Amino acid sequence: MNGSGPLAGIRVVDFSGYIAGPFCTQMLGDMGADVIKVEPPAGEQWRGQDPFAPGFSKSFVALNRNKRSIVLDLKSENGRGVARALIASADVMVHNYRPGVPERLGIDYSAMRELNPKLIYASNSAYGQKGPRAHQAGYDLVIQAVSGLIASNPTPDGRAPRRYAGIALIDFTAGQMLAFGVLSAFIQRLRTGIGQKVESTLIEAALSLQRQKLVSVEALDGQCPQPAKGTVRERMRTAASHANDLVERELYYRTYETSDGYVTIGCLNVPQRKHFMSIVGLDDPWFENPDALPQTDDEDRRRRALTSYAESEFTKKSTTDWVKAFEDCGVPCAPVQMSADLMFDEQVEAGGYFVGFTMPEFGRVRTMGSGVSINGRPEGHRPPPELGQHTQEILDELAALPAAATSADGDRRT
Amino acid sequence: MNGSGPLAGIRVVDFSGYIAGPFCTQMLGDMGADVIKVEPPAGEQWRGQDPFAPGFSKSFVALNRNKRSIVLDLKSENGRGVARALIASADVMVHNYRPGVPERLGIDYSAMRELNPKLIYASNSAYGQKGPRAHQAGYDLVIQAVSGLIASNPTPDGRAPRRYAGIALIDFTAGQMLAFGVLSAFIQRLRTGIGQKVESTLIEAALSLQRQKLVSVEALDGQCPQPAKGTVRERMRTAASHANDLVERELYYRTYETSDGYVTIGCLNVPQRKHFMSIVGLDDPWFENPDALPQTDDEDRRRRALTSYAESEFTKKSTTDWVKAFEDCGVPCAPVQMSADLMFDEQVEAGGYFVGFTMPEFGRVRTMGSGVSINGRPEGHRPPPELGQHTQEILDELAALPAAATSADGDRRT
Repeated sequence: MNGSGPLAGIRVVDFSGYIAGPFCTQMLGDMGADVIKVEPPAGEQWRGQDPFAPGFSKSFVALNRNKRSIVLDLKSENGRGVARALIASADVMVHNYRPGVPERLGIDYSAMRELNPKLIYASNSAYGQKGPRAHQAGYDLVIQAVSGLIASNPTPDGRAPRRYAGIALIDFTAGQMLAFGVLSAFIQRLRTGIGQKVESTLIEAALSLQRQKLVSVEALDGQCPQPAKGTVRERMRTAASHANDLVERELYYRTYETSDGYVTIGCLNVPQRKHFMSIVGLDDPWFENPDALPQTDDEDRRRRALTSYAESEFTKKSTTDWVKAFEDCGVPCAPVQMSADLMFDEQVEAGGYFVGFTMPEFGRVRTMGSGVSINGRPEGHRPPPELGQHTQEILDELAALPAAATSADGDRRT
Repeated sequence: MNGSGPLAGIRVVDFSGYIAGPFCTQMLGDMGADVIKVEPPAGEQWRGQDPFAPGFSKSFVALNRNKRSIVLDLKSENGRGVARALIASADVMVHNYRPGVPERLGIDYSAMRELNPKLIYASNSAYGQKGPRAHQAGYDLVIQAVSGLIASNPTPDGRAPRRYAGIALIDFTAGQMLAFGVLSAFIQRLRTGIGQKVESTLIEAALSLQRQKLVSVEALDGQCPQPAKGTVRERMRTAASHANDLVERELYYRTYETSDGYVTIGCLNVPQRKHFMSIVGLDDPWFENPDALPQTDDEDRRRRALTSYAESEFTKKSTTDWVKAFEDCGVPCAPVQMSADLMFDEQVEAGGYFVGFTMPEFGRVRTMGSGVSINGRPEGHRPPPELGQHTQEILDELAALPAAATSADGDRRT
């Protein structure tokens, strides 16, 4: 991709590891940016995360294509000097160091802004630069706890689950936000000629995902809204009990077990719910407002009986039969599928969402692509680099730069 | 924000509803773009999603600040004419219509490209333009089913949960990806002068979040990897049983119940695990490689006993005590908190993640901000608009444009 694509000509120097930073820079690389991954002599951490060969794991492959790798020992003055020269030559720098570390390495914002006033200085951290937790490490699961995501997903008896969803959803969100911020700042730089500091944090990303709940309105909540009363444990139990009540009366936006699997229904409007009722053979007097609370015990019993009836009906036919019946009249639905099967799915194939490249020792590799298309799909992706694969090449490039070279400006790319 | 910010001067015409599209355009508006929200006479759907007053719900407030609202009836020729004039004046257009609808409304890509060759034409849909599901509606929960997210989160006995996490994580991901794509295309437009078609889909966003699992390597998986054998139900049961086994031996990356709540631990390296052992009073011979499978029944019993011991120790002290002990030696950990409390959290306050604005009838409103900072935080956000609040203002602006006006080009903003 490098050399073409919407972001061709933009040079990114990437000191980050794990998920959020590398995903951000891969997004930039997918769009054609020249991403230089700076790795310590032992390599980025995720090379060794359940590796299938020395230096390569599936996680690493999924997050590090379209990059070149240079090994620098930032503990040595020589390594730090090359890092500074790279940053001087770059448009964007990305790191995920904890507060204080960039200062120790001599690559903090104020020094780098002086070195390269056009630089977009982007960082991701757990908690940002200020506040009581700023100096703590925080990985995805820990931020799920502190941000309320774990508490929002209690077990049926109202306890905290030991683990949450098995995806690093906060890391991915932070990486996307950082990439968006980098491009916003780059557009501003094209106008002003000066660089920007861009910052994402895991805690902010976790709150961003819950933004619909995180709204206070003075007329409703008072001028100084107060935290709710009760311990987290008590409040989780109450919330779970309420959620269970809702689940036991939920007909239209949920998953049902069929005779051979599961089907998920997503009716969000009245016409869809009418079709659903007719296909399942239900007569639900609440279909126009299924979230209305039952007013009497009798009403409550009737509504729970409706759910039981629907659940029982669903077990009488196969997933395929149900899906066909619903699709024929436009009820949003889908079979519950295994994600691994999506690599062989006709709909996914039609979208061209996967990309392929060849790695010398491993042959053809297929992995998720950019996640968004711009006039179709970019071709010719570079495989993830071996550790230090481009060290010499990048050093040679630096040596060939004029002594006073700084970053490219927008004009270079026109 | 409009009038300043990195994206000031960029005009976005937004026909989208629900979450993904409005979140994308709010991200652009937060950065200073002039976002015009085109609404049908009845208003966008989410105005009525559990409203606290006619036309305003917390969900709507969370996703629609920094926009102006114009009401257009796209069923009338007059409404469609104004829509076309707006698009002719815009830099970016966003919609989330199903395939075929833009053609019916006369605002499909090929027509709009002819009208405004510089236009960035951005759309989000459930399944994209092609493939067997392309014409289906798909909301977040349905895409969770079809993409494998529901199956990846089975109940302990291996069944599909009726609901997944209560956040629309796919919608948010798709919105972020679309915003990133729009800015990438805009940067390319500054260089080439021509517009682009940008497309995100919910299915692609869902796969993007699972990208670490979705990698096939020829040397490992063969030249033509095959879908796994067995029904989804069988495979979910097997996966759940495997996950339960792991959970019963997991010590270092999980949530524990304390005497008064829950604490989550995230040890990802050996030094952190050593500290953890010393604080909890454990002697775990597997601490250097806790994912190693037990080789004998005896080994398996010993490892499960370690977990039980740790769980029992955790119930002897309060969450605060545990957090303090772990923090003092750098073990990543956090209390399980309720997300609503984060609106009053000192760390969140320090980050400045929330924004405020005043709505005439509702007073001060506080809601999650942009999700990323660029040289600090933008100020002066516009509240979400009343339905059609800016119809006349926007019509007047259009009338004042020269007859041949098309979109702004990059130069206008310099």
